[in-house]
Amino acid sequence: MLTWDRLQTLGGISDEPARLKRVFASPGMRTAAAQLFEWMRAARLTVTTDDWGNLFARTPHPDSMPLLVIGSHFDTVPGAGKYDGALGILAAIGALETLSQDEIKHLPFAVEIAAFSDEEGTRFHTTYLGSRAAAGGIEPADLARRDSSGTTLASLIPEKSRQPSPRYTKGKLLAYWEAHIEQGPVLEKLNLPLGIVTAIAGQTRAKIRFTGRAAHAGTCPMDMRHDALAGAAEFVLAAESLARETPDLVATVGCLDIAAPASNVVPAATDLTLDLRHPNDSTRSQSIATLQSTAESIAKKRGLTHAWETVQENSAVACDPAQSRILEAAVAANQKEVPRLSSGAGHDAVAMSKVAPVAMLFVRCRGGVSHHPDEYASPADVAACVETLAEGIRRLARQ
Amino acid sequence: MLTWDRLQTLGGISDEPARLKRVFASPGMRTAAAQLFEWMRAARLTVTTDDWGNLFARTPHPDSMPLLVIGSHFDTVPGAGKYDGALGILAAIGALETLSQDEIKHLPFAVEIAAFSDEEGTRFHTTYLGSRAAAGGIEPADLARRDSSGTTLASLIPEKSRQPSPRYTKGKLLAYWEAHIEQGPVLEKLNLPLGIVTAIAGQTRAKIRFTGRAAHAGTCPMDMRHDALAGAAEFVLAAESLARETPDLVATVGCLDIAAPASNVVPAATDLTLDLRHPNDSTRSQSIATLQSTAESIAKKRGLTHAWETVQENSAVACDPAQSRILEAAVAANQKEVPRLSSGAGHDAVAMSKVAPVAMLFVRCRGGVSHHPDEYASPADVAACVETLAEGIRRLARQ
Repeated sequence: MLTWDRLQTLGGISDEPARLKRVFASPGMRTAAAQLFEWMRAARLTVTTDDWGNLFARTPHPDSMPLLVIGSHFDTVPGAGKYDGALGILAAIGALETLSQDEIKHLPFAVEIAAFSDEEGTRFHTTYLGSRAAAGGIEPADLARRDSSGTTLASLIPEKSRQPSPRYTKGKLLAYWEAHIEQGPVLEKLNLPLGIVTAIAGQTRAKIRFTGRAAHAGTCPMDMRHDALAGAAEFVLAAESLARETPDLVATVGCLDIAAPASNVVPAATDLTLDLRHPNDSTRSQSIATLQSTAESIAKKRGLTHAWETVQENSAVACDPAQSRILEAAVAANQKEVPRLSSGAGHDAVAMSKVAPVAMLFVRCRGGVSHHPDEYASPADVAACVETLAEGIRRLARQ
Repeated sequence: MLTWDRLQTLGGISDEPARLKRVFASPGMRTAAAQLFEWMRAARLTVTTDDWGNLFARTPHPDSMPLLVIGSHFDTVPGAGKYDGALGILAAIGALETLSQDEIKHLPFAVEIAAFSDEEGTRFHTTYLGSRAAAGGIEPADLARRDSSGTTLASLIPEKSRQPSPRYTKGKLLAYWEAHIEQGPVLEKLNLPLGIVTAIAGQTRAKIRFTGRAAHAGTCPMDMRHDALAGAAEFVLAAESLARETPDLVATVGCLDIAAPASNVVPAATDLTLDLRHPNDSTRSQSIATLQSTAESIAKKRGLTHAWETVQENSAVACDPAQSRILEAAVAANQKEVPRLSSGAGHDAVAMSKVAPVAMLFVRCRGGVSHHPDEYASPADVAACVETLAEGIRRLARQ
């Protein structure tokens, strides 16, 4: 069965009838896991599961052999596309099916496909649960989290596995590879199916509030206003300008809320979110410092106050140069140019980077659209991804 | 009961526990109407209501007599003060209580207090619903409007009254008077309680939508974005700049909504409101044309589309000189200087000017603050307003 066809089948398994949504420990996830199990078994792999909903499918090599892990996640956002996550698992299965039984038998390492149960964090608002359960990093704070119905994460995990002994530990793995749709427009613009990821960008998330003074839209002269929205608008444009001027920086204001909005009232307070990412942590820190001082000077000039709350900070993760070169050479076998790009989105490779050198392969996706039902990768591009992973395994074996 | 005390009581009736908010056809409006009804009845007035939530309280004169209407509105913005609108209704009740029964009996005209149900337009983003229902001017487009929960205005009005027969028609009214807090800083600066309004500024209200394309905040490079919020932010600042450069112009963006906001998604569409006012209609038209072309060039530059919907256009309204002289003389009875000022805010007098000569009395408000819980007029200034309306009625009777 073609990997692309499997993507369509898996994409039809959902927690909801009208749209694709599979969240941690849901009925849809259990059905999807059963389907993955069947395909993994059909590929002559030995499948095991853990109490966190992860599946691991291994080639028939002794436990003592070195291990290459290839994986991704099979949970989704609400209203998802069929490729985000699923592609990385199904392409790995397809790659092992592409290799002959003889090729597999003679590999100097075992290959294990990891199908992780939670990367999006839709249900508990925390990312990489599946890969962190496998690679270490589950915290008591994670277990205490509640979903929207009040169910704790802990209550879904058998007691003995709430602090899981990591399946993967530092020094035991040859590498972790992950194929993923790009979720951006760069490969499409370059008209190339595949690219190599250099690094996963670090991210800062902040909430910024500007507070001014409500005033009547008709009677308060312009020079007596303290307009919180105008201050916020200046900040939106300042963040955009800084990102435009700074190579590889992206900055996004995705939410902006006026307190008690009315068309005839000068806004008294405005809350906005900032999402800022860069593959280099020091550039990210400098950019944040610049925008903090911009917010301060906007507030000062306009007679506003402002508050800045850093919600989250994730460091950048560099992909391993040696492993990336192997995947790059595999891409080059069928593509004359191999673009290198950084990933603005987080991936399971972030959690796996704690225990293994990581490398990532990006697959072109139409219009750069992701987290949306229109998400699409072509059968030809998916086949190229499968072939490239197989070729990568062959090349790693020859090292 | 003192008018000022009634203002405190009415200001305690709200749709929300934590702040004053009364919007068209809300529970708070029904409770407020019941309270007004009680005070009007206590003042020996005959009270009728209509299907638009308006109340009319009339002196006991035959229907055939000429009619002086004095009124204002009792809906509010969210987070309102207690004086905007309410003062004009309660001061009119107080004025009729100030006159003796004998004085009222011998008036050569009836006096009717109009308590209008919607001037702010908070719920449906269209103003003067109450006074337009009474004076004519309700359009099918008004009825089709939806509030934020999707409820249409039409669904709140009994079918027979959706196109109301106007209670007030041209040529039937002696005059319409309205007392209102100034909502600006001029009287306070002059240290005088009352002033006479010469004209009400013209106003244009518009909704502007910028539509771009949703994109992943991490994976879409800055130069490939079509960020609807960034376009909207540019427009907010352009409107502010134009108003700062143009004498007497005020321009306000009071609402700004991102469609499906998420901190990690580049906004695909943004709706904003524009409220623009100037006492000279041609300056206002020129300013609107300038901002329309600004919106167009912002959209073009950013690869967005934009839509401009003019929600409302009110020409500037001149107050009637003869009626204004009567109120001016009434003010002069207790105040040695009578300032004349224009109103930057719209008032029900705008809708009523279609059917009657209008005159307005402004009452000093602390700090020029309105549409805010800190809105305040002193008991002495409110009493002066009540006394002046009573004196105005006496003077009109002597004409």
